[in-house]
Amino acid sequence: MTNLTAPPTVRARRLKLLTQHDAIVLMHEDCAVCRSEGHAPRAQVMLSAGGREVMATLYQIGNGLVAPGEAGLSEAAWQRLGLDDGDEILIRHPPALESLSNVRRRIHGRRLDAGAMTGIVRDVAAGRYTDVHLSAFLTACSALPLDAEEVIHLTRAMVDVGERLEWGADVVVDKHSVGGLPGNRTTPLVVAIVAAQGLVIPKTSSRAITSPAGTADTMETLTNVALDLPLMRRVVEQEGGCLAWGGAVQLSPADDVLIRIERVLDIDTVGQLVASVLSKKIAAGSTHVVLDIPVGPTAKVRSDDEAATVSASLTAVAEACGLKVVCLQTDGGQPVGRGIGPALEARDVLAVLQGAPEAPADLRRRACRIAGAALELAGRCEPGQGTAAAEETLRDGRAWRKFVAICEAQGGLKTPPRSTVSRPLLARHAGRVSGVNNRTLARLAKLAGAPDDKAAGVELHVRLGDEVAAGEPLLTVHAEAPGELAYALDYAGANPEMISVEA
Amino acid sequence: MTNLTAPPTVRARRLKLLTQHDAIVLMHEDCAVCRSEGHAPRAQVMLSAGGREVMATLYQIGNGLVAPGEAGLSEAAWQRLGLDDGDEILIRHPPALESLSNVRRRIHGRRLDAGAMTGIVRDVAAGRYTDVHLSAFLTACSALPLDAEEVIHLTRAMVDVGERLEWGADVVVDKHSVGGLPGNRTTPLVVAIVAAQGLVIPKTSSRAITSPAGTADTMETLTNVALDLPLMRRVVEQEGGCLAWGGAVQLSPADDVLIRIERVLDIDTVGQLVASVLSKKIAAGSTHVVLDIPVGPTAKVRSDDEAATVSASLTAVAEACGLKVVCLQTDGGQPVGRGIGPALEARDVLAVLQGAPEAPADLRRRACRIAGAALELAGRCEPGQGTAAAEETLRDGRAWRKFVAICEAQGGLKTPPRSTVSRPLLARHAGRVSGVNNRTLARLAKLAGAPDDKAAGVELHVRLGDEVAAGEPLLTVHAEAPGELAYALDYAGANPEMISVEA
Repeated sequence: MTNLTAPPTVRARRLKLLTQHDAIVLMHEDCAVCRSEGHAPRAQVMLSAGGREVMATLYQIGNGLVAPGEAGLSEAAWQRLGLDDGDEILIRHPPALESLSNVRRRIHGRRLDAGAMTGIVRDVAAGRYTDVHLSAFLTACSALPLDAEEVIHLTRAMVDVGERLEWGADVVVDKHSVGGLPGNRTTPLVVAIVAAQGLVIPKTSSRAITSPAGTADTMETLTNVALDLPLMRRVVEQEGGCLAWGGAVQLSPADDVLIRIERVLDIDTVGQLVASVLSKKIAAGSTHVVLDIPVGPTAKVRSDDEAATVSASLTAVAEACGLKVVCLQTDGGQPVGRGIGPALEARDVLAVLQGAPEAPADLRRRACRIAGAALELAGRCEPGQGTAAAEETLRDGRAWRKFVAICEAQGGLKTPPRSTVSRPLLARHAGRVSGVNNRTLARLAKLAGAPDDKAAGVELHVRLGDEVAAGEPLLTVHAEAPGELAYALDYAGANPEMISVEA
Repeated sequence: MTNLTAPPTVRARRLKLLTQHDAIVLMHEDCAVCRSEGHAPRAQVMLSAGGREVMATLYQIGNGLVAPGEAGLSEAAWQRLGLDDGDEILIRHPPALESLSNVRRRIHGRRLDAGAMTGIVRDVAAGRYTDVHLSAFLTACSALPLDAEEVIHLTRAMVDVGERLEWGADVVVDKHSVGGLPGNRTTPLVVAIVAAQGLVIPKTSSRAITSPAGTADTMETLTNVALDLPLMRRVVEQEGGCLAWGGAVQLSPADDVLIRIERVLDIDTVGQLVASVLSKKIAAGSTHVVLDIPVGPTAKVRSDDEAATVSASLTAVAEACGLKVVCLQTDGGQPVGRGIGPALEARDVLAVLQGAPEAPADLRRRACRIAGAALELAGRCEPGQGTAAAEETLRDGRAWRKFVAICEAQGGLKTPPRSTVSRPLLARHAGRVSGVNNRTLARLAKLAGAPDDKAAGVELHVRLGDEVAAGEPLLTVHAEAPGELAYALDYAGANPEMISVEA
């Protein structure tokens, strides 16, 4: 007889099954629990143990990997439940998701109010939506784009379902760049300058997701970035700023879930971008934020009109959420600095901080403009004086000393690694550099091994408008293995438009 | 060095991993092929062997289930590739899906022309879309519903990417009911009548997906329904009709993929319903089709307006595709006949065919109306004469003899099984039956074990408007195990509104 009250338990078994975020449970095909509860293969089930729960996809296997009465779990499910081998877990039918009715209403053109949005975002953050549901929600919010009110609801809901940091300061500075520009590694410079000016800037950054380097990847070649919250607090208390990897603190977890699906769909609406950026900043406890919006034909934002739309929405939603922001439209026509890849970008950053003669001027200029805007926004400088103050902080060595102090507090300053193999790409003919493609250059750096191989990437020798002679190196590909170098060079040979030279 | 030309092969290993349709490949976490090719966990990969290919999700496992250089496959992937253990398979990055750009355009409000729709449907049928992509396509076509042209494009594309049967007859009759009404088992009766009248009606039916019985489930209690195409042709040549399970012939495979996602989303737009129904009929080689549209508060179509919209779209798209159809709006206010469940419905069908005194009159009437409409549509009867001709075919035993002949040709007529345990549900008080809920009754039959337990289900003793005494049986629940009977009765006790009695 089926027991109608208590769902039966099974023994947990760790399979070392790597699935990224997919929670999967494997059961024996003759398992009595599956039969009595009516769990068919590919059913969604709710696993629970020790007060934690996770939605998982159930598959059945007949080859003896798991015994009847056992549940073999993927690492994602194992970690989220915090299990030990042999622990008892409950397997139930998942509860009906009330919030899905609001997703269906949204598909049919109805707007979402604050309560409906919160219900959806809470279930998203809790991992209760399958890919089918997540995709439907995002598609519906793209087919009929989120209106201004909905973006505010979404932003607030994403903050509400995660952790929210507090820093005990009235002014907490932050910056964000709306992606897509290789080598745009201003963050370490801005943090050093702003903290040297006495402001609080507890910066968390991401690792690369689709790009050849994220700020966390670059900083990892210089110091320890895997700070837990207590260490992050100590560093910020002592130095005013930090340069930490954001993965260790759970800010806006719903955003992480949604971004994964947006990437698969390759749809990226303004409303979702705004909610994603601002929710992370609010959750990080920031009060004053400078937003860098690079515009260029191969950048994420491609036109001045698009930049104006994004800026207007960011500003309006930030205001509604009590956040002070300034949007800077910047040149996104070509990569910033010389290096593309973690260690190569770190070297550009060090050169600027140390005032080295070869330091890339464009990276320095951008960092000073952003840091200057932050100093003005936070009331540290009069309007129009920020950039000069930032320049001065760099010139007199205060920013460099602050950067060293932050790295020391995080665990010590390191020297970035150098590649073991490299090869230049030469101009086929003389002429003027007339085009530089951010996307293909980023792809080249990734094929060379970035960001996993820290020293891998691309070193640019020319910029838009430069005159080159035939046979002159346009760039150098750096790698850590001959195979990857060959693979990258093969791609470069097939994509000569990545740097166009007009005869 | 990475070999840039030929992708490396791995040895196939059958895991007996049951995932329904999910193609999954498990590789060792230290597999050199994954490393050199850059296949990370949860990557989509293209598997190929012997000229066949399948898109699969790759997971990595560290516990020795598969060795480095091996690829462990789910049954879905194994069957589609037609493998033997140890076969070499290729694992590659999947090709870029051009058709996704049209899905993105559709999300942003652009209409799909015939070429764009065909590209999408071809990739869907080939299993190249992930759940994220499928959900986005369906959501986009619901948020901005398919227009008349798009439904035609979708219908034709779904036919084009699958098999299409031909019967060598100018008139090939078919029928379809727009689901949702328990016990509405007219198909065996219609086939017997229409074939007895000398028309060709090669009927393929589905098994239950969310309902307690599909026509294939019911017919399986009476004869063999798993006909391959040669046997199906022999039966139809000999008897004019057949009653086969459609799963053995691949008609409109894209529809099967899309329906799975629509069910998860629980969205069901008119355009998708029309394309789904008509593509299956065209692919089956039908030329004249009667469509039964039950309307009622707990049926799939809930109002006359909705029925009119569905009818208009079915008629317009059928005409554009060269198919002659007639739509019959029928009463969907309560289940049809007495039985709900495979064997119980089979007994109703037999009673009608044999002219038994206890035969349910409503089932007989509906079948004659549909068969009559088919006889008129196919030109076998004058307008207005069809129903009477159908009645006559039943009354004089021709339909019964034809049914027996079809079953014999398919492998022999069987007697439907009887349940081993059953229990009546009694009226709590005297009164008039004022409401019968199709949805809760269907659920009750499923909890009792239908359709897997062929004899399980619900036997109704009353109909809307009947007067009942206190303690009189309203229905009997049939099951094959006491546990399931208890489970079903528990549900019935908690849902007294499934049959409302007004005092």
